[in-house]
Amino acid sequence: MAAMAGRECDVVVCGAGLAGLRAAQELKRAGAEALVVEARERVGGRTLTEQIGGGAFIDHGGQWVSPGQEEIVALAGELGLELFPSWDEGQTVHWSEGRRSVAPGLFDAGEEGAMEGLRAVAKQLTEMATELPEGAPWEAPNAAEWDDVTLDAWLAENVPDPLARFGMARSLEGVFAGGPGKTSLLAALAIIRSGAHEVTRLVAEEQLGPERRFVGGAQGLSERIAAELGERVLLGHRVGQIGHADSGVAVETDRGTVRARCGIVTFPPTIAGRIRYSPALPAARDHLTQRLPMGWVIKVHCLYDSRFWAVDGLAGKVVSDEGAIRATADNSPPSGSPGILVGFIEGAQARRLAPADPDERRSAVLADLSRYFGEQAANPDAYYEYSWGDDEFARGAYGGYLTAGVWTSYGPAMRRPIGPMLWAGTEVSAAWNGKLEGAVHSGRTVALEALDRLP
Amino acid sequence: MAAMAGRECDVVVCGAGLAGLRAAQELKRAGAEALVVEARERVGGRTLTEQIGGGAFIDHGGQWVSPGQEEIVALAGELGLELFPSWDEGQTVHWSEGRRSVAPGLFDAGEEGAMEGLRAVAKQLTEMATELPEGAPWEAPNAAEWDDVTLDAWLAENVPDPLARFGMARSLEGVFAGGPGKTSLLAALAIIRSGAHEVTRLVAEEQLGPERRFVGGAQGLSERIAAELGERVLLGHRVGQIGHADSGVAVETDRGTVRARCGIVTFPPTIAGRIRYSPALPAARDHLTQRLPMGWVIKVHCLYDSRFWAVDGLAGKVVSDEGAIRATADNSPPSGSPGILVGFIEGAQARRLAPADPDERRSAVLADLSRYFGEQAANPDAYYEYSWGDDEFARGAYGGYLTAGVWTSYGPAMRRPIGPMLWAGTEVSAAWNGKLEGAVHSGRTVALEALDRLP
Repeated sequence: MAAMAGRECDVVVCGAGLAGLRAAQELKRAGAEALVVEARERVGGRTLTEQIGGGAFIDHGGQWVSPGQEEIVALAGELGLELFPSWDEGQTVHWSEGRRSVAPGLFDAGEEGAMEGLRAVAKQLTEMATELPEGAPWEAPNAAEWDDVTLDAWLAENVPDPLARFGMARSLEGVFAGGPGKTSLLAALAIIRSGAHEVTRLVAEEQLGPERRFVGGAQGLSERIAAELGERVLLGHRVGQIGHADSGVAVETDRGTVRARCGIVTFPPTIAGRIRYSPALPAARDHLTQRLPMGWVIKVHCLYDSRFWAVDGLAGKVVSDEGAIRATADNSPPSGSPGILVGFIEGAQARRLAPADPDERRSAVLADLSRYFGEQAANPDAYYEYSWGDDEFARGAYGGYLTAGVWTSYGPAMRRPIGPMLWAGTEVSAAWNGKLEGAVHSGRTVALEALDRLP
Repeated sequence: MAAMAGRECDVVVCGAGLAGLRAAQELKRAGAEALVVEARERVGGRTLTEQIGGGAFIDHGGQWVSPGQEEIVALAGELGLELFPSWDEGQTVHWSEGRRSVAPGLFDAGEEGAMEGLRAVAKQLTEMATELPEGAPWEAPNAAEWDDVTLDAWLAENVPDPLARFGMARSLEGVFAGGPGKTSLLAALAIIRSGAHEVTRLVAEEQLGPERRFVGGAQGLSERIAAELGERVLLGHRVGQIGHADSGVAVETDRGTVRARCGIVTFPPTIAGRIRYSPALPAARDHLTQRLPMGWVIKVHCLYDSRFWAVDGLAGKVVSDEGAIRATADNSPPSGSPGILVGFIEGAQARRLAPADPDERRSAVLADLSRYFGEQAANPDAYYEYSWGDDEFARGAYGGYLTAGVWTSYGPAMRRPIGPMLWAGTEVSAAWNGKLEGAVHSGRTVALEALDRLP
């Protein structure tokens, strides 16, 4: 790529994750000149796929598509990227208070009451969530009250069955990856309102269909859009400063400045807060970025000759209350070979194990997998891990989350443009907040807003 | 000042607030070569004094010295800076549920039971705080439990008298300036453990003496240390990146790079998190900086011919449950003339009024002061205000605070050095955390740590 000092365009998009690329794609199709600046030497943001040969691949980042996520499915179709059902037939391994058992669903045998309790609270939360105006949780009639109480405290008071409570907490915490700042009830409702599949499937009248994955991996979406955009994507261009005025923006990167009528910032809010803005941003926007920390997950993959757990009738799924790995899934490719288990080291476990010696961490993971799936799990042919907290440009996963009081205090600053600058990304999305679908949705809608601003 | 490309020294200090300057002073005295880099064109950080003639001055930032704060008093003595008792004789104006009354202390007449309740909870919290190891709240026996509950929730359950509860919440929230992220009980205990005068004076057996202020203003401390340091203080040098290795640091600023064996970063943690580090920092440190947001206060001063409130037997103090200004003090200079009232627009009120038209904000403030002090307050000779949330390099005041779960999750990253980089500042101080004294203490102690690392 040539030196780019002084490049100009209609819209400069900061970040070549799914939101930024989708925005640039939409802008290009509408005839606007868009450039995407990206710090990394790759596209995809928090999607990251490693090809390991023979059609097999490792999705280190976001990977799942849930029923109801229509934009990303349509996008994949346009890009010629196929989806396949995530492997999940079979029983779940339950590990609770030192005891292993096997049962078909979320709960162990004899815990059927818990499922009823979980459905009841899912129904209640879903109903409460309908009271949130789309994209404006702070305008709900009970916003102040709901933002003042943590999700945990509300569950403790309203869900008598401890198993149902644990199930709901895990369903929703899955979005945050065990952030230590307790999220508020309102923040949880905002997630549900935006489309949390984990909750909606519990209250669905009919079967919604399986979770799906992308053949070849989720990063393929970004790679294909980037191929369409060609030289409009500038890799290795880390944004240092954004100058802004009524007339437009000047995005200064390590490798030159891009000027445009309009700027779109797609970084997670906490990362967007680290940019130097000139002039400095109003306090409300800055304070929002101080209050949207990222969760932390280390995603671990173990590769085996075959899906040996399926022989035992297992789905490769775990629900556990102990160990480094407390949730797993079968991440094998469409062909079913090799067998790949993915495990999630979340929150407190990530904090404990990330600084450890890699061998120690691997031993802890393999001990857990053996506990769940037997001795065969102890000796994978290959072992992969990725700590999203240590990723300099994401600084966490799955996403950013709002602690108590933040929605009602700083919510309006989430999407409100500042001069020629628009905010996007899955954390900002009113639909499927925190998901790949949210990124795609946010990218498309912000592009329409940017087009409205062009002459 | 000459161009400084390629300057080298023993220790480079980032930030010319009280902590950074105190550190550099100590280093210089010990014979080490220290340079201080500062983004602003002034020293003092969150102390900022405006001289208004005739020996009168406006302290826009930190200003008070409490009994027991020994380091800052000794420092002032060395620097030849005098202290004077803050004006506070007279009665307090109470505004509660639309009714104004006047009484000697924290509570209105007929609310004597509340004082007893407040003393009782102050005693209880003080005792609990003794269980926190100094500088390591996460090591307290009950740390997990206390970090999981918000201060508000604990008070609601343990303090039956609503007035006593309100009094304690206000005492401790004064440190955070109404941040919307609810602080945890453990975080509040950590503040008390480090020396929260608002609480300790409630349980003191004897009179502790008055709050004091600096003759000529609090920024004078920093200005005098800076004068000692002379050309070692580099103003207008904004830190963009810190390179670090075992051999030392390279602090890159807008105006050149300073190399040193050791670097001291004194910015509030959230601001320190915005620096680019090379190599990137471990996730635990980065995640801490994502979880220590700043409070927001707009400090307002009104200047009058005389201390007219004193004629009515008033101290210039307000305890109110309504309006933009809910707390005030008499900020007149040592001579008592002119009369100066300071009011604090905190938290939710700052968020509401900061984006408003300046005239609208001023009207709201003056209406409040008239309500408290009568019509004479409505027409000040001069009006000053400073929004710390909008200050690009502080991004809030009084300080940063930890929400629920953060101390026990990321606490050890608060002061743990990373290679040649040490962390300092009042947010980091184990003594008088959040206060001027905390900044001074932190600056001195980090200098000793840095000296230990020099050959």
